[in-house]
Amino acid sequence: MFVDQTAFLIGFAIMALGSLAIYAKGSKAPPARHHTLLHSSVPFIAATAYLAMAFGIGTLISITGSVTYLARYADWSVTTPILLAGLVLLAFHERGRTGEVGGYLTAIIVLDVLMIVAGLVSSLVEVPVVKWIWYGWSCAAFAGVLYLLWVPLKAVANERGGALASAYSKNLVFLTVIWFLYPIVFLVGPEGLKIISDPASVTAILVLDVVAKVVYAFYAAANLDSALVGAEPVRSTRR
Amino acid sequence: MFVDQTAFLIGFAIMALGSLAIYAKGSKAPPARHHTLLHSSVPFIAATAYLAMAFGIGTLISITGSVTYLARYADWSVTTPILLAGLVLLAFHERGRTGEVGGYLTAIIVLDVLMIVAGLVSSLVEVPVVKWIWYGWSCAAFAGVLYLLWVPLKAVANERGGALASAYSKNLVFLTVIWFLYPIVFLVGPEGLKIISDPASVTAILVLDVVAKVVYAFYAAANLDSALVGAEPVRSTRR
Amino acid sequence: MFVDQTAFLIGFAIMALGSLAIYAKGSKAPPARHHTLLHSSVPFIAATAYLAMAFGIGTLISITGSVTYLARYADWSVTTPILLAGLVLLAFHERGRTGEVGGYLTAIIVLDVLMIVAGLVSSLVEVPVVKWIWYGWSCAAFAGVLYLLWVPLKAVANERGGALASAYSKNLVFLTVIWFLYPIVFLVGPEGLKIISDPASVTAILVLDVVAKVVYAFYAAANLDSALVGAEPVRSTRR
Repeated sequence: MFVDQTAFLIGFAIMALGSLAIYAKGSKAPPARHHTLLHSSVPFIAATAYLAMAFGIGTLISITGSVTYLARYADWSVTTPILLAGLVLLAFHERGRTGEVGGYLTAIIVLDVLMIVAGLVSSLVEVPVVKWIWYGWSCAAFAGVLYLLWVPLKAVANERGGALASAYSKNLVFLTVIWFLYPIVFLVGPEGLKIISDPASVTAILVLDVVAKVVYAFYAAANLDSALVGAEPVRSTRR
Repeated sequence: MFVDQTAFLIGFAIMALGSLAIYAKGSKAPPARHHTLLHSSVPFIAATAYLAMAFGIGTLISITGSVTYLARYADWSVTTPILLAGLVLLAFHERGRTGEVGGYLTAIIVLDVLMIVAGLVSSLVEVPVVKWIWYGWSCAAFAGVLYLLWVPLKAVANERGGALASAYSKNLVFLTVIWFLYPIVFLVGPEGLKIISDPASVTAILVLDVVAKVVYAFYAAANLDSALVGAEPVRSTRR
Repeated sequence: MFVDQTAFLIGFAIMALGSLAIYAKGSKAPPARHHTLLHSSVPFIAATAYLAMAFGIGTLISITGSVTYLARYADWSVTTPILLAGLVLLAFHERGRTGEVGGYLTAIIVLDVLMIVAGLVSSLVEVPVVKWIWYGWSCAAFAGVLYLLWVPLKAVANERGGALASAYSKNLVFLTVIWFLYPIVFLVGPEGLKIISDPASVTAILVLDVVAKVVYAFYAAANLDSALVGAEPVRSTRR
């Protein structure tokens, strides 16, 4: 577990510094500052999860020797809703009534959290048929998340047209690609088909987490900034 | 447990199909689409809980033989807040500032979740006096939920007048009647006075769940649709 | 544990009556009624936690004899976000779009809940170096909460000027002072340096809880009321 612990401490350091950097570099004025706050919250949560994993807190080892990191699932069940909330708020940028935005947030977060809970059940269950039923149910929930992002929410963003629709599309493509890699790593890792080892899985997910949480934050902020400069030049002086 | 497993798999199928049907049939345009999203989320969560119960995941059996399904309480602690949010958003339909709506949502969801947590404690405790104190505390929280729905939120809905107030009242009566049956089934079931058996309790709650989550969704959508047609005829062409 | 049980039952009674009193005395009309709802929710949650502690529900005793009350951490992880939400909504009083307010709420609640989770880990861990790393991480999250309250949110409140900015400042000072005492009691209590005994710690936290949840609610309501009278005299007749 020495390789793992090193990876977890590296993860903790990157996430903690990433959180501060996203806040320091991000816009502090409306209408973009709430995106700065959302994106800097995400790696702070991940840093806490990596700190827990580094000390074995919430780490379960089954009788067959496979490892489930509960801290990871706890992290994902909060950070992925925040990332999705960023996309939903971008689609409805400065529009959208409380009820409307709340309806989309509720539906997409419900599907997303059930995706993660079903993944956790799949990880913990040893009976193959039950494991794969839950893996499939997790994928069904993921399909629901993608449907909402790519169909109705994309239509909402497109109604705004121009720069905002383009920023939404860019962020959506990035997030979709990176999120697709997680179930693949799970599938081939020790929680699934056991093709790759635990240290390989830990390293792969560390890389994914840094891209999905820190790199994505800077990418999304740059897309939003250029959209706001293009769409509303007057506002750009306030940032 | 064979009867139970059959009931749970039937519950899973009804809830999964119900979720898709509510979304397929529901309004996809403002100002009603967020109600479609809220109501189709609810049976998707219940489907996941029934899938868990079918495989015994989160099922606790006490030394006296009584059964507590944790998946059920987890389901309820998320689905009942969503159903209440639908009613709160109907009362404030297209009005209500973020803070105002948020205040009502927070208060009613706090009372509702504590009602369910207190019910879970009551189910798990074996000492009679402690069991019934927690059952009573759960009922006190339920009384608080009903008070908010029937007094201040009803007044908010009535201020809107006409069709919307009528839709709110119809949904409120339906939800109040069906929700009153749950503590009665708990009371006479294996978690309470043990008058009815576990399979009888499982079947009774399956019927209640389908009515409270799927039938109610169609009923509430019909009431909202006819209110919007009556109140704002121009809008009806957008649905 | 006799002293503890008496304290817990007194806590239950004060919190239950406090919740009712805050609601009975509070404003029932906009624009202040949602603050009444938020502040009366808080001691209702605390009452439930004190009821649990009185019966030993969720009370963990380690092999070294130190006690961790899970009900307390569960209480705090919900009540402190509600108290912070009250301050955020005061800073943005009747202004602030859904996205903006939601961004601040998300960031401050994430930091706050991680502060409590890290405190719980610190309480449960026996290895001193790990215990103090988590205590430090909890303090780092607390520093983040204070930064958001004292810098960007204070600036938002100050933009509103006059009476509202003054109400925000008064509530902020009260809350900051009382919240600073919790980590000190933790530090010297049985979960930390074991300088004071468990009954002394229970009594100290009971006093803090009553001040932070009940006394603060009346203080905050009085400050908001006088701000609204000063700023908008016409409105004062509606309360």
